[in-house]
Amino acid sequence: MTRKTIGYALLEPGGDLQPWTFERRALRPDDVEVRVTFCGVCHTDLHAIEAAQLRVAQPDDGPLVPGHEFVGEVTAVGPDVTGFAVGDAVAVGNIVDSCGVCEACLDSAEPYCEQFPTLTYGGVDRRDGTPQYGGYSTSYVVTEKFVYHLPAGLDPAGAAPLMCAGVTVFEPLRQHGVGPGSVVGVVGLGGLGHLAVKLAKALGAQVAVFTTSDAKAGPALELGADEAVLSPDAEQMGAQRGRFDLIVDTASGKHDPSPYLRALRRGGTLVMLGLPERYEPEAMALLGRNLTVSGSGGTDRTREMLAFCAEHGIVADVEVLPIAEVGTALDRLGRNDVRWRFVLDVAASTS
Amino acid sequence: MTRKTIGYALLEPGGDLQPWTFERRALRPDDVEVRVTFCGVCHTDLHAIEAAQLRVAQPDDGPLVPGHEFVGEVTAVGPDVTGFAVGDAVAVGNIVDSCGVCEACLDSAEPYCEQFPTLTYGGVDRRDGTPQYGGYSTSYVVTEKFVYHLPAGLDPAGAAPLMCAGVTVFEPLRQHGVGPGSVVGVVGLGGLGHLAVKLAKALGAQVAVFTTSDAKAGPALELGADEAVLSPDAEQMGAQRGRFDLIVDTASGKHDPSPYLRALRRGGTLVMLGLPERYEPEAMALLGRNLTVSGSGGTDRTREMLAFCAEHGIVADVEVLPIAEVGTALDRLGRNDVRWRFVLDVAASTS
Repeated sequence: MTRKTIGYALLEPGGDLQPWTFERRALRPDDVEVRVTFCGVCHTDLHAIEAAQLRVAQPDDGPLVPGHEFVGEVTAVGPDVTGFAVGDAVAVGNIVDSCGVCEACLDSAEPYCEQFPTLTYGGVDRRDGTPQYGGYSTSYVVTEKFVYHLPAGLDPAGAAPLMCAGVTVFEPLRQHGVGPGSVVGVVGLGGLGHLAVKLAKALGAQVAVFTTSDAKAGPALELGADEAVLSPDAEQMGAQRGRFDLIVDTASGKHDPSPYLRALRRGGTLVMLGLPERYEPEAMALLGRNLTVSGSGGTDRTREMLAFCAEHGIVADVEVLPIAEVGTALDRLGRNDVRWRFVLDVAASTS
Repeated sequence: MTRKTIGYALLEPGGDLQPWTFERRALRPDDVEVRVTFCGVCHTDLHAIEAAQLRVAQPDDGPLVPGHEFVGEVTAVGPDVTGFAVGDAVAVGNIVDSCGVCEACLDSAEPYCEQFPTLTYGGVDRRDGTPQYGGYSTSYVVTEKFVYHLPAGLDPAGAAPLMCAGVTVFEPLRQHGVGPGSVVGVVGLGGLGHLAVKLAKALGAQVAVFTTSDAKAGPALELGADEAVLSPDAEQMGAQRGRFDLIVDTASGKHDPSPYLRALRRGGTLVMLGLPERYEPEAMALLGRNLTVSGSGGTDRTREMLAFCAEHGIVADVEVLPIAEVGTALDRLGRNDVRWRFVLDVAASTS
């Protein structure tokens, strides 16, 4: 039996993403087949496409099908699958396998797997070496361990971005014990930032958004932030000195983290989520403060995040486009023209 | 009554440190006068002298008397002093006053005083604005709060460097909970590094020294380190990946912290003690790991450090020179030619 799938793929450098028919692997005993309904569009997808356009990242890997935050419905399960049945509403994030035996995996910190986790697209399956094609597609086959039940009551399109953007910001908020009394800063208001605001508020924190754009101050408050700080304004930034327990920096471009470090209280932590080659903080700005980069959350944290979002009614604010309009989504995302995440409706144009 | 003091001072750019007679302030009610017996020579002294030679740091501040880790004997006390009496053996470190009312001061984290602490030399007294002259001198006058009892049984010359070098490395070791089972790395073997080895071992940790010099491997083991890692050796460094809970980096020159970050386990922390203008870590090396700069310890930690050193018989390994040979000490320190700290015998040449 073949598992024919239609994905949106970059087939050659210089081209656009276009429909491409391929086959998912035959189900292994612990595999779950998911009919994808909605898939979020992450900045990582844009970077992967740009790299593939240059044939930098994937010189010989063939077609690139992006997509690593999606929801859907179980359509088949392998004989050893115990947690899922056909018809279950499920979600999948950016990791689909890991070694399972290293200290990180045993600690449910699979993003830190010492053998490097298998990503939802862009690499190869760790068991049979076949290429991984992502969630911009009609179906996906994935080992049960990395499938999550989608809680009832969460809008599926809005829930898709929880699986990457959501858990990526939930992880540092929880790791650093954010709760009532915490003062949290969020740098950048986009797919990650807007979920960081919602999640930090739901955890009970006081939340400020740092933004370079005056136009985002209003939306920040509408999302629930207590205040918006215009980061290019030296006076506003000076007034933040020593205030924050945790600052989650979601800005993707290279920038000086020092002003945010200085906004931390003694012992506070600046979590960087954007990944330039290097950071260049001023040494004195780090005095008594911490700089770190957070990976996404592991399987336990992802389940916790979904339960938390269900309890608090949190989903991403999304713009839904039919998957055939993926080019529009990517173009507009490249210009930061989205509030706050594009989600592709996979069924809309492939059914 | 005047409090005549002989200090070794830089009196003009281009000159050498030379004997200079000046007067300490008249005792305030909470002041303690200390007859200095031994004063350590810190890299900071060298930097301050170099800056003053260029008239960068102190354009108008007059003579520079370095020295901020010293021991001695109480020779007089103000009427409100309750903790010290004439004849007490005491020690003083690199902070001699602070605002006393900010959150940091109330938390005994005086190095982080929001009004900036008064340093032992190089600034001015926060109450009367007079210049602070350091411990390369026959006497010092200091508010009781920043005077410490020198435990009996500790060699006074070896104890002097505990007051800056010692507490500066003890602070991060204690803050990060180093104890039995901890794996600690120490980058650089000098005044700070050799005390970090001794203190971490006494706390029960497994300790590795990272050094650029093959010649320091033997001495590292003699100091009690369990192993020495030659940091320029890619193979040796590669084998350290993910091993360490805490690495204390005492190297003063600018260098890439990334190899040490990669040597940390997930959740581990690299503490930088050298202060270039900026650090430039690779973003991926910070994934799941922390970078911070530690200030020195506050008054509570300093007392704890002295008690710990007394209990474990820890002092610095020092070379003692008469204060008249301060020029030799500074020259050799500038070439890293010292095992592991110079201490000036103040009484030797001024009595």
